[in-house]
Amino acid sequence: MKKKAVLAYSGGLDTSYCLVNLTREQDFEVHTVIVNTGGFSPEEIIEIEKRAYELGSSHHETIDITQKYFYDCLRYLIFGNVLKNNTYPLSVSAERMFQSIAIAEYAKQVDAEYIVHGSTGAGNDQIRFDTAFAVIAPKAQIITPIRDERLTRQEEVDYLVSQGIQYSWEKAKYSINVGIWGTSVGGVETLTSHQTLPEEAYPTQLSQTEPTTVEIGFTKGIPTSLNGIEMNPIDLIQELNKIGGSYAIGRDTHVGDTILGIKGRVGFEAPAATMIIKAHHLLEKHTLTRWQLLHKDSLANWYGTLLHEAQYLDPVMRDIEAFLESSQNHVTGKVILTLHPYRFDLIGIESPYDMMQSKVATYGEDMDAWDGRDARGFIKIFGNQLKIYHSFEN
Amino acid sequence: MKKKAVLAYSGGLDTSYCLVNLTREQDFEVHTVIVNTGGFSPEEIIEIEKRAYELGSSHHETIDITQKYFYDCLRYLIFGNVLKNNTYPLSVSAERMFQSIAIAEYAKQVDAEYIVHGSTGAGNDQIRFDTAFAVIAPKAQIITPIRDERLTRQEEVDYLVSQGIQYSWEKAKYSINVGIWGTSVGGVETLTSHQTLPEEAYPTQLSQTEPTTVEIGFTKGIPTSLNGIEMNPIDLIQELNKIGGSYAIGRDTHVGDTILGIKGRVGFEAPAATMIIKAHHLLEKHTLTRWQLLHKDSLANWYGTLLHEAQYLDPVMRDIEAFLESSQNHVTGKVILTLHPYRFDLIGIESPYDMMQSKVATYGEDMDAWDGRDARGFIKIFGNQLKIYHSFEN
Amino acid sequence: MKKKAVLAYSGGLDTSYCLVNLTREQDFEVHTVIVNTGGFSPEEIIEIEKRAYELGSSHHETIDITQKYFYDCLRYLIFGNVLKNNTYPLSVSAERMFQSIAIAEYAKQVDAEYIVHGSTGAGNDQIRFDTAFAVIAPKAQIITPIRDERLTRQEEVDYLVSQGIQYSWEKAKYSINVGIWGTSVGGVETLTSHQTLPEEAYPTQLSQTEPTTVEIGFTKGIPTSLNGIEMNPIDLIQELNKIGGSYAIGRDTHVGDTILGIKGRVGFEAPAATMIIKAHHLLEKHTLTRWQLLHKDSLANWYGTLLHEAQYLDPVMRDIEAFLESSQNHVTGKVILTLHPYRFDLIGIESPYDMMQSKVATYGEDMDAWDGRDARGFIKIFGNQLKIYHSFEN
Amino acid sequence: MKKKAVLAYSGGLDTSYCLVNLTREQDFEVHTVIVNTGGFSPEEIIEIEKRAYELGSSHHETIDITQKYFYDCLRYLIFGNVLKNNTYPLSVSAERMFQSIAIAEYAKQVDAEYIVHGSTGAGNDQIRFDTAFAVIAPKAQIITPIRDERLTRQEEVDYLVSQGIQYSWEKAKYSINVGIWGTSVGGVETLTSHQTLPEEAYPTQLSQTEPTTVEIGFTKGIPTSLNGIEMNPIDLIQELNKIGGSYAIGRDTHVGDTILGIKGRVGFEAPAATMIIKAHHLLEKHTLTRWQLLHKDSLANWYGTLLHEAQYLDPVMRDIEAFLESSQNHVTGKVILTLHPYRFDLIGIESPYDMMQSKVATYGEDMDAWDGRDARGFIKIFGNQLKIYHSFEN
Repeated sequence: MKKKAVLAYSGGLDTSYCLVNLTREQDFEVHTVIVNTGGFSPEEIIEIEKRAYELGSSHHETIDITQKYFYDCLRYLIFGNVLKNNTYPLSVSAERMFQSIAIAEYAKQVDAEYIVHGSTGAGNDQIRFDTAFAVIAPKAQIITPIRDERLTRQEEVDYLVSQGIQYSWEKAKYSINVGIWGTSVGGVETLTSHQTLPEEAYPTQLSQTEPTTVEIGFTKGIPTSLNGIEMNPIDLIQELNKIGGSYAIGRDTHVGDTILGIKGRVGFEAPAATMIIKAHHLLEKHTLTRWQLLHKDSLANWYGTLLHEAQYLDPVMRDIEAFLESSQNHVTGKVILTLHPYRFDLIGIESPYDMMQSKVATYGEDMDAWDGRDARGFIKIFGNQLKIYHSFEN
Repeated sequence: MKKKAVLAYSGGLDTSYCLVNLTREQDFEVHTVIVNTGGFSPEEIIEIEKRAYELGSSHHETIDITQKYFYDCLRYLIFGNVLKNNTYPLSVSAERMFQSIAIAEYAKQVDAEYIVHGSTGAGNDQIRFDTAFAVIAPKAQIITPIRDERLTRQEEVDYLVSQGIQYSWEKAKYSINVGIWGTSVGGVETLTSHQTLPEEAYPTQLSQTEPTTVEIGFTKGIPTSLNGIEMNPIDLIQELNKIGGSYAIGRDTHVGDTILGIKGRVGFEAPAATMIIKAHHLLEKHTLTRWQLLHKDSLANWYGTLLHEAQYLDPVMRDIEAFLESSQNHVTGKVILTLHPYRFDLIGIESPYDMMQSKVATYGEDMDAWDGRDARGFIKIFGNQLKIYHSFEN
Repeated sequence: MKKKAVLAYSGGLDTSYCLVNLTREQDFEVHTVIVNTGGFSPEEIIEIEKRAYELGSSHHETIDITQKYFYDCLRYLIFGNVLKNNTYPLSVSAERMFQSIAIAEYAKQVDAEYIVHGSTGAGNDQIRFDTAFAVIAPKAQIITPIRDERLTRQEEVDYLVSQGIQYSWEKAKYSINVGIWGTSVGGVETLTSHQTLPEEAYPTQLSQTEPTTVEIGFTKGIPTSLNGIEMNPIDLIQELNKIGGSYAIGRDTHVGDTILGIKGRVGFEAPAATMIIKAHHLLEKHTLTRWQLLHKDSLANWYGTLLHEAQYLDPVMRDIEAFLESSQNHVTGKVILTLHPYRFDLIGIESPYDMMQSKVATYGEDMDAWDGRDARGFIKIFGNQLKIYHSFEN
Repeated sequence: MKKKAVLAYSGGLDTSYCLVNLTREQDFEVHTVIVNTGGFSPEEIIEIEKRAYELGSSHHETIDITQKYFYDCLRYLIFGNVLKNNTYPLSVSAERMFQSIAIAEYAKQVDAEYIVHGSTGAGNDQIRFDTAFAVIAPKAQIITPIRDERLTRQEEVDYLVSQGIQYSWEKAKYSINVGIWGTSVGGVETLTSHQTLPEEAYPTQLSQTEPTTVEIGFTKGIPTSLNGIEMNPIDLIQELNKIGGSYAIGRDTHVGDTILGIKGRVGFEAPAATMIIKAHHLLEKHTLTRWQLLHKDSLANWYGTLLHEAQYLDPVMRDIEAFLESSQNHVTGKVILTLHPYRFDLIGIESPYDMMQSKVATYGEDMDAWDGRDARGFIKIFGNQLKIYHSFEN
């Protein structure tokens, strides 16, 4: 009887090699799985399924977790205004983690003895896959041909060609990972420290030059309307990606630490993520207390770091999520943005919880809530500890 | 004998009122002091001195602390990449604190019995003044006519006119505070939550449209060269303000909490601060360890918060400064930026300490530093705790 | 018509003065309220009510919030192992805050125009009262005779005697505040920095000398059984206070910062709080992940600090509570303690979620979960960043 | 020519096996090194050297780094009041790290091609050794026979006996690691979760029953005098270990996370570390500001965690040390303790920087520094944000 393996299949060269090699040479019955978190179009999904069966898959499964991905992950990245190293929305980190978990759950469900992924030993993805597999489907053995055999791209192509498989496997000039929370772009420039990606490396090109205004509505921190029209958050993100992409908004180069301890650099375009997070943050500045802003910031930074570092399954992540969700109680209102080529301005907000427009006290010259005598008393006591500390010097 | 008072004099309506009122009605000998942190031009300094004597100052003192301001404060804001609420370089907060301290030290030195400032009871400045005065010159009594008498602008003007003083005191449409680390702009729009300052409110207007490249060199975190030319940091900042200002770079609206617990909003333009901090942060991403980046971020956020909140004299600030200075050991190199109207791109960096270009290990497909077997062992152990934690569920 | 005032009445000298003075001299109808958080016995409650009516109360209300106090506050102090400055269970800070809130809610409910408390202007309690009153019953005006008139103890007694009120008001040698979460003790020694309270200052005296064993059971972080018997947490705390008190356990002197910026010192005995928190913490060390322990610690420290500083009503407290509650998912099991005079030992724990007794991997010489080759790979990659950072020196 | 190896030699079974096996079977010239951080007596050092030569060492080196260990490490653990998981002074973690670094530096200095340690693959020590070796002596290859060959204790003994080496290798009932900052004790009980070490497991036994008073003097955070006599900190620690040991003070069981992600448990006795840290912390409560206490606590917790986790060479540790050193500016004075069997009381402190005994303002009923009107103003403004936040509910 054949050994039953579940393969995280993307349709690319590495996983195609795994599929062919495992089925033809090693007596495996391979179930291919692809997990869509919103980055694949229906056409791509069909094409990948077709190729999977052509290359020998016993059963191909497409798992769409886009809604779950939003509610279990992207939602918290918005609540936390999470931009790793102050710029990167963690699009690939989050997506790969959720794909790994979905594949592990599938493997557990179908009682697979083996789980296969096509990652090399160089990067973060292997850690997300291995960790999710070992935690969720601990009985399944992990197989990683590309990592173990250290095959070159050419060796894989040669092998496939020798097996009569003749797809076009040429390497694209820029390696792209498309996702709803951002598209990453790697190229020869991102391997240096001093060069930036050229304009043409970005999949989405500038097509609008006239400024436009966009209004994003939030309900307890979740983006729920666009230009006054209520929308499912997923639709809203996709629509904002279209609008923002036409202005080439949300591009940057991320420099960060891999889980393996080395520095890496990658370009990205993430129009929706960038605009939603900046708009959400502005709304929070008006509706959260100083203590909420201070503590949220630090915790959310950790949330992003641990998510990036394949620690999503640590229960501390659930604890931070509980904090973040609680903090969104008043984060309801709308934020107005003006889009220009390559940038956008935050114009302002409207919220029933806007602490700046309170009747209790407002900023400016008028003081109804206290008088000069109160202020003098406040400052006198406010300065007590400094006065005491420095009194030893006088 | 007259009572000796030191007045923090700016030449504006409030402090002119104080000067005239205290000398003519209350038998004070008033010493006026203005502290330059780099925001006043020589012409303005002369004009203020002239006016001070005209209005009755017994002695006018100009104290220039620009260099000290850089070394005791701005330097640490750069080391910490401090942008309050992710945008505001704390230009006014920092400047006013240092002016307060310089005035308090002067008052102590000349044995003043009284120190006077012209702030109202509504905002943060009174807290910076009162605290610095009480801590550094605890024997001097603090006098605050504007806060105590709650005078309106018109009442002050009427009084001065009645005293035969006929300057033009009309209120500017936008209230501006010019500083080397940024210029704040308040107006009718910043009192709302949903409107932004119009183009014309900004003192510096866009005059360049063609992109240009700028290269900032850092030595242990301090900006020391511009486009290859070594410069004193103060000169460098002033030059960068000119260049960046011509591209209208570094503008935004800050929304934040006053020390008095209410939300406030203010526009600003801070071309040099914005570009230096973003460039410095990029250089750090290449040269600091993951742990340094994580801990610096959180501490620096507190540094900015406490500086903003008039806690500069708390010894914890010295402790954080010691941390920040230590962290800059490898932050040497240059950063390349491209300037466009209203925005700039970070192109990349060069540094002898660039951890991304290390011979030990580099990002990408090649792995000389470890192999697939190492990676497998790493991840196996890396996942131990998650496997144990989740084993209770299986 | 008389002005309706609610008075936070304790039966002590200060609040008795307020009650008599307001009703006899100032035309107030005073409703007295006492809030029991578990520190008053039924006899004391009856005595206080009797005295309230004798002194002129229009209506006396006893509000028992002991259960609410546990679920809304003490529970989180246990979850967070909160010991301020590593020793003080915040017994008075927490209790006074909850009493203030209950009084404010009562005042709002009965539409009182005034709320009165008897605190001086020197300490923390006034801040808890004023803040709760202003936030919850913003329409009521706050009256504070003791603070405003700066009366001495003797002046109050003289006034009451002049009104024919002849209780025994002599000042106890030690001022005591009894609560279920701890009893504070202030005396002449605690005003110094170098003396400690004498044995006799503590209300509960050592009466046991033979060691005994106690077993505390926790369910999701809540103490739910004692020596195998299921109990309501309030009963459990009271029982543990009795047992631990007989060993004179849980005494110390707390040194801390008041909200007004000065240092204070107070003795306390808190047998139940001390034993529960130490036992709970030990159970957490076995059942939480490293990341949970690290982040909980820091957040819980802030929770205690903000609770102490009258910030309980800040929404960040709800956010931290959400984090803490989430973290308790696995904190179920029992903890064994041995009690000796003045101290106790933590013997160990049993828990279905004890990560130390996992089948996945255990501490010691045997390694089934990984081998030496795995370990070598782990460490090789684990050290990558340090190797890179230090390579510039070699 | 023989291959030159440096062996971290302890005189125990594992490293004796390595020494014999490498010299007799594998053509190595082995240089044995032992690093004393204060835990070895002169007699032990001589005994170990003798045995090293007997077993075939080409050259034996004893490196004493006790002073360096104090100034580069223990000092900061005191400044930070570092007790891992609130109890463990990190005695073994710190000591092994410093031994690893000293051996690596020696290997680099003598140009060794190989470095050998005798750790298994199960615990933390291998990580400290491997990391220090790879960072400091990157050209030397690391050899770990015990880890690689997974030898049992019996196999090692059999081999040595077969080589004619007949020491007494029987395993002690409790495995002990003696150090100046604490002695760890492992046994069958510490492998369980519910049992504690028996009295006899501790190397130092109770010998005093009458209470005694001890006074520790600190100068900028460093313990510099004992009972009024100035001492070198190392002598002071050793003396305090003697005194405290005779009261059986400073014992506990530590439960924590190994770097490999599993939970471990170990007993320890650390009289000097426990008393010094608690005394130092009390002195800090009197002499540091609230902000210093809050930020120090969190940073120091990380310092201990990273030190434990073999990250001492990360530059963030230097940054935290800079913070900690800066924070000790006022931590000068003396602390009085009373020692009893198994416990001690902190009586109080005296310090020229005691903020509790300031003339500016003191705790208690008298208020010279502010009055009731000031307090009312303070609280009114202090509560602004809460009033605004909750105004939306009313």
